[in-house]
Amino acid sequence: MPKVTIAQNILAANDTIAQEIQQSLAARGIRTINMMSSPGAGKTTLLEHTIERLHGQLGIGVIEGDVETSADAERIEAAGAETVQINTRGACHLEAHMIRDALAEIDLARIDLLVIENIGNLVCPSAWNLGEDLRVVIVSTTEGDDKPAKYPQMFAVSQVMIVNKLDLLPYVDYDIEKVKRQALAINPHLRIFELSCRSGAGLDAWCEWLVTFVHGEAQLPVKSAPTEEHPQGVLPR
Amino acid sequence: MPKVTIAQNILAANDTIAQEIQQSLAARGIRTINMMSSPGAGKTTLLEHTIERLHGQLGIGVIEGDVETSADAERIEAAGAETVQINTRGACHLEAHMIRDALAEIDLARIDLLVIENIGNLVCPSAWNLGEDLRVVIVSTTEGDDKPAKYPQMFAVSQVMIVNKLDLLPYVDYDIEKVKRQALAINPHLRIFELSCRSGAGLDAWCEWLVTFVHGEAQLPVKSAPTEEHPQGVLPR
Repeated sequence: MPKVTIAQNILAANDTIAQEIQQSLAARGIRTINMMSSPGAGKTTLLEHTIERLHGQLGIGVIEGDVETSADAERIEAAGAETVQINTRGACHLEAHMIRDALAEIDLARIDLLVIENIGNLVCPSAWNLGEDLRVVIVSTTEGDDKPAKYPQMFAVSQVMIVNKLDLLPYVDYDIEKVKRQALAINPHLRIFELSCRSGAGLDAWCEWLVTFVHGEAQLPVKSAPTEEHPQGVLPR
Repeated sequence: MPKVTIAQNILAANDTIAQEIQQSLAARGIRTINMMSSPGAGKTTLLEHTIERLHGQLGIGVIEGDVETSADAERIEAAGAETVQINTRGACHLEAHMIRDALAEIDLARIDLLVIENIGNLVCPSAWNLGEDLRVVIVSTTEGDDKPAKYPQMFAVSQVMIVNKLDLLPYVDYDIEKVKRQALAINPHLRIFELSCRSGAGLDAWCEWLVTFVHGEAQLPVKSAPTEEHPQGVLPR
């Protein structure tokens, strides 16, 4: 099956670059997180609030992934972080070589934490290592409470799940306990945060944990090994 | 560039199958729509309401695309439509060969309208023809009002845009006029419906239009040709 061979080769090449990125950032004492979610789950807004709250505590650099536009990078830069925009022009996820190129534009001596905001997509980004130390998946209370079961690979490869838009819970049918049960059934090691950028609920706990994570004090959730059921090596073509 | 060649070959093979599907369904007088959106924008719920409202008026068959689970197919079957579930097991979009296989499971003599619910993904499905007569993109008021600009290809290849979850407008920052302006700037031929499955607002207009579409009376929105800026031929690998 030539198609499968090509897919595996592409992912193996990506993994090699990702490993180089991880080693190079680790050598500089920089921690890296890869934020993933559906479009509109609130990645950029959460990042704005996180940067503003941690101003003076952490040096944060951001790589913004979008199919088109630089609107998100402008928002993040206004929040106070050095930002590089990647436009994939049609591609549905970030790849490690894009991160390597973007890193050349960031003054690494000034940052402790690199945040990569991936393309809004709950499927494809889960297969691509970017050299991150931590993968964070964000779901929101307006998306329906069946997302972990329907998109399991994203939850299998993440170490943190954030349930966002808590403020909208009174207006939607969303069983947050069901979401947590589904996610933990796929990945028992997931660390879960519940928050609202609108009300501010839960932001303190998230930001405090993030600081301990960057300083290496947080007990890091176990990185799940790929399983046969949720192989990280699936290329979603 | 061997990668590009392969991608083009895959899409060309898909288009050939899609054309066969479209011709075969047209010969039976069946109209087909391809529903696409982010995860959680409300495709399945809208479909449930549409099927219930059009009971006795239209014979509706549904092909449900999901990465995993058959939960949506069960919901749709309970609403009263003959349903076939496709689980892509990791793949981020439906392809024409999957539709061809699923059609063998549907009693085509009993349906006037075939609805294909694609994988929840605002990027990849836009590149894959499934033999549909109409592409419908659904956005919701909780996703942020920048989606057409950030995911333009989906809006370029669709003929109808539905803005869903109108009932949540009072609780979110969402400029619906901005969304419509952005979408129409990408695709001036888009037919736009605004509705809420929770309140029922706008469902009558949508269902009435759908009936005229199936009966061939609706003035069909122009199918946009692929442009250099938004090529349908991009393979989002």
